[in-house]
Amino acid sequence: MDGPTAQPTLRTRSWWGWGWTDAHPDDAECAAMGALLPGTLARPLPVPAVRDLRIGSPAVEPPASLARLVSAEPADRAAHSMGKAYRDVVRALRGQPGRIPDLVARPVDEQGVADLLDWAGERAVAVVPYGGGSSVTGGVEYRGDAHRAVLSLDLTAMRRVLEVDTEGRAARIQAGALGPDLERQLRPHGLTLRHFPQSFEFSTLGGWLATRAGGHYATGRTHIDDFVQSMNVVTPAGTSSSWRLPASGAGPSPDRLFLGSEGALGVITEAWMRLQERPRHKASAAVAFTDFHAALRAVRELAQSDLAPANCRLLDPGEAALSGAAGDDSSVLVLGFESAGEPVDGRLARAVELARSHGGRRGPDRGPGAAPADDAAVGAWRAAFLRMPYLRDGLVRMGAVAETFETAATWDRVPALIEEVRAEVGAAALKATGHPATVNCRLTHVYPDGAAPYFTVLAAGRAGDGVALWDDLKAVAGEVLHRHRATITHHHAVGRDHRPGYDRQRPEPFALALTAAKSALDPNGILNPGVLVG
Amino acid sequence: MDGPTAQPTLRTRSWWGWGWTDAHPDDAECAAMGALLPGTLARPLPVPAVRDLRIGSPAVEPPASLARLVSAEPADRAAHSMGKAYRDVVRALRGQPGRIPDLVARPVDEQGVADLLDWAGERAVAVVPYGGGSSVTGGVEYRGDAHRAVLSLDLTAMRRVLEVDTEGRAARIQAGALGPDLERQLRPHGLTLRHFPQSFEFSTLGGWLATRAGGHYATGRTHIDDFVQSMNVVTPAGTSSSWRLPASGAGPSPDRLFLGSEGALGVITEAWMRLQERPRHKASAAVAFTDFHAALRAVRELAQSDLAPANCRLLDPGEAALSGAAGDDSSVLVLGFESAGEPVDGRLARAVELARSHGGRRGPDRGPGAAPADDAAVGAWRAAFLRMPYLRDGLVRMGAVAETFETAATWDRVPALIEEVRAEVGAAALKATGHPATVNCRLTHVYPDGAAPYFTVLAAGRAGDGVALWDDLKAVAGEVLHRHRATITHHHAVGRDHRPGYDRQRPEPFALALTAAKSALDPNGILNPGVLVG
Repeated sequence: MDGPTAQPTLRTRSWWGWGWTDAHPDDAECAAMGALLPGTLARPLPVPAVRDLRIGSPAVEPPASLARLVSAEPADRAAHSMGKAYRDVVRALRGQPGRIPDLVARPVDEQGVADLLDWAGERAVAVVPYGGGSSVTGGVEYRGDAHRAVLSLDLTAMRRVLEVDTEGRAARIQAGALGPDLERQLRPHGLTLRHFPQSFEFSTLGGWLATRAGGHYATGRTHIDDFVQSMNVVTPAGTSSSWRLPASGAGPSPDRLFLGSEGALGVITEAWMRLQERPRHKASAAVAFTDFHAALRAVRELAQSDLAPANCRLLDPGEAALSGAAGDDSSVLVLGFESAGEPVDGRLARAVELARSHGGRRGPDRGPGAAPADDAAVGAWRAAFLRMPYLRDGLVRMGAVAETFETAATWDRVPALIEEVRAEVGAAALKATGHPATVNCRLTHVYPDGAAPYFTVLAAGRAGDGVALWDDLKAVAGEVLHRHRATITHHHAVGRDHRPGYDRQRPEPFALALTAAKSALDPNGILNPGVLVG
Repeated sequence: MDGPTAQPTLRTRSWWGWGWTDAHPDDAECAAMGALLPGTLARPLPVPAVRDLRIGSPAVEPPASLARLVSAEPADRAAHSMGKAYRDVVRALRGQPGRIPDLVARPVDEQGVADLLDWAGERAVAVVPYGGGSSVTGGVEYRGDAHRAVLSLDLTAMRRVLEVDTEGRAARIQAGALGPDLERQLRPHGLTLRHFPQSFEFSTLGGWLATRAGGHYATGRTHIDDFVQSMNVVTPAGTSSSWRLPASGAGPSPDRLFLGSEGALGVITEAWMRLQERPRHKASAAVAFTDFHAALRAVRELAQSDLAPANCRLLDPGEAALSGAAGDDSSVLVLGFESAGEPVDGRLARAVELARSHGGRRGPDRGPGAAPADDAAVGAWRAAFLRMPYLRDGLVRMGAVAETFETAATWDRVPALIEEVRAEVGAAALKATGHPATVNCRLTHVYPDGAAPYFTVLAAGRAGDGVALWDDLKAVAGEVLHRHRATITHHHAVGRDHRPGYDRQRPEPFALALTAAKSALDPNGILNPGVLVG
């Protein structure tokens, strides 16, 4: 295999906010957004600078043998101090990010990872694995002071597609490959991993595996878990290499223990991943509903049908308006079909027909205005989907609380769950800030037996106290989720922020087993301390 | 919910062989089968009787509080001494079954399971969970003498469907429900679990979950793993109850730790399972191939297409002849399509067309004789599929070695793997017995990235030494599997017979984690000792 060619690096990643610095909204755009939300600032908070941070000297030095892999540059360390949650951005804006790691290491091979873990284990150095750094749950940030020092273990130098099996449609891929880089290396083979989380540009294969990423598609195989043939995981107790298999019934799946282990059990270094042919046929439509509950029933029937839409996102009226997919009070169902093998127009037509039987209106049905035109609505939604995290940061600069969270529940619980999150989080925000808040919902993934509601909260902030305010709102949401036995996370992972909800959700005997597994694999407790166990 | 109505119990289960005693081949049929296999006996070995076994008194007595759940009847104990592998049947025929458990317990609720585990833990009594008893890998048999006594924990008194969610298509089902009983209770709701392993009549939901059963379908969701919403597992350290969720990204899946745990980590007592509508449209066809390798390529393309056949079983020439699906030297591909929503004839036609492009011949294409007629071939294969285990036992009564094993591998390894198993196991059998053996193969499950080859071995036995002979042949097969990094089991589980292969396959750090989990959940080491760990 040839290695990846050099990537153009003309753009600069933001150390404190989402994505590329040149894609950030400017001050005027921030102010315009802020003007739409009552109780925000008149002018945006300034963009924070690394030079304004107090960054001490590293508490440890790497041994000479590993020095070439390690950086102690302040900008490097600051950029690895946190993920990209609201609470991360607002802390950065206030010049108080999470604990700055002492060192950032960028191993180039599995041996380098093992050597770094050996060294860290001997020195009681905490190791926080780091892929794209897009965690929104405190997954890449050290908290506490139980360790002598903190090493951020950045895997992005290990970004090659090492082997491709075109006949069997699989590839061996290093864990540090970011989404676009990985797809670029697969494209010459006519294959795709076809895993497109919202963070695609800024997240890695290893991060997807460690957090059980959900992918972009609404139905069928979209979770990264289902695409794993085998994985290599470096642990302090040795390297785990599972066999490359299409399926196996030999005991509990080794891969499923490491999928979702969030860096607490080991460092994923590479995986054989199942690939797909690139889709050649696509069709999409937008369907508007006056009645959100009728739309929910339509979506359930779609999920239970044989139609298998690639996209089946239901936006509630607030979400539809925010993304520009609808201008009235309608809910909008964004439908998409894709296939490598055959045209999908028939499936789209049947899906639209099913939606119509529940009162759905497609654009062409009733003339302009009555329902969104397919292209406009779908396009608006797509553009908003990708731009959303940037706009979120802009709103935060205006002093607003702007954050998302998500869950999943069986169909019987979905309607009340959504109503109660909207009502209770909205009421709590109003009470705390004196201003009405926006609490929108969309379904990002649908299953025959349930759905994944995804909530966006936009609220006035509380000067100097945004983190605490958000923590309060999140706690209110967490109570609703717990009341309905809805998962604390469908695809954002547990990290540190979701630990309380996770600890309530996880069966106690499983916690015992996981804690024992952690002790066996990481006896010195250096791996992502505080995540999942301990 | 109403409880299940009483099942007719006019038929008697065999204590030593497969299934119902009235379905066993009689002496004449055994002799006729034996005559087809060189080197077998002239007359069948007699059917063994429990009264001829030496069954001692139980080494322990249950406490009064649990006595109503416990049987010490010799016939009960003999029937719970082993599974249904070749090595089990031949040992029974020789009057030397596995260690007879001291007691058989049949708890009627979760509390009863917990109480039994508490008692067993205090007394160092080994507990072997038992569902339908259809293990073919030594999964329900105690070996060794490290425990004071052995309790067979039979779950079949817990066989009710407790709740059905028709809207969300799911049901809460007790683990001891046998396949037909479970489906009978779901039928009034218009739903089906649609999980039909070959052992369907004689295996339970709990057994399927504990062994990661493969189900009958060739592609798509067929593994029991994918149908689990949540599980209750009683462990000595407490009961694990996961939440009922369509999906979750909250840490490693608790359910996936217990799926495949084979009774070594806990006793599965119930699960919420995803259901499906009953299929209304079905179509099937048989396609013959002169070139087995061309057939393999056709099957791979089918598995990688969007067509999703429910059945896509490729029988090699020996397997096709044995089952009556073909009379010549052809390989036969048995294709089936099913849908609850829409007719499947179009998909079948496209699949047949694809097979034709690789040289496949469908019955009607070339007149009678040239290729099997669909109904005849498909029907012959189905009948043989269900009757096979009974005939196996008949051949064993004739002194033959008759056994199956299965594996899975990526497509690049499948052709050589099959060739080498055929050649090397055949050569070893010839060398050991002086008679040529039959080694047939079919693909039972196909995936975009690989397939599950399933082998049938029919060979002359070695008087009084059948178990050792089979162990030798299986070791030869195991070496081929290991050479190709093919799994030691695709859906037969590890049990005790596959431990050597499993230990080689399993990554060492995962073994450390699993051993630690076992110690945390089963500190006294009473649960199915020798299975998976310890």
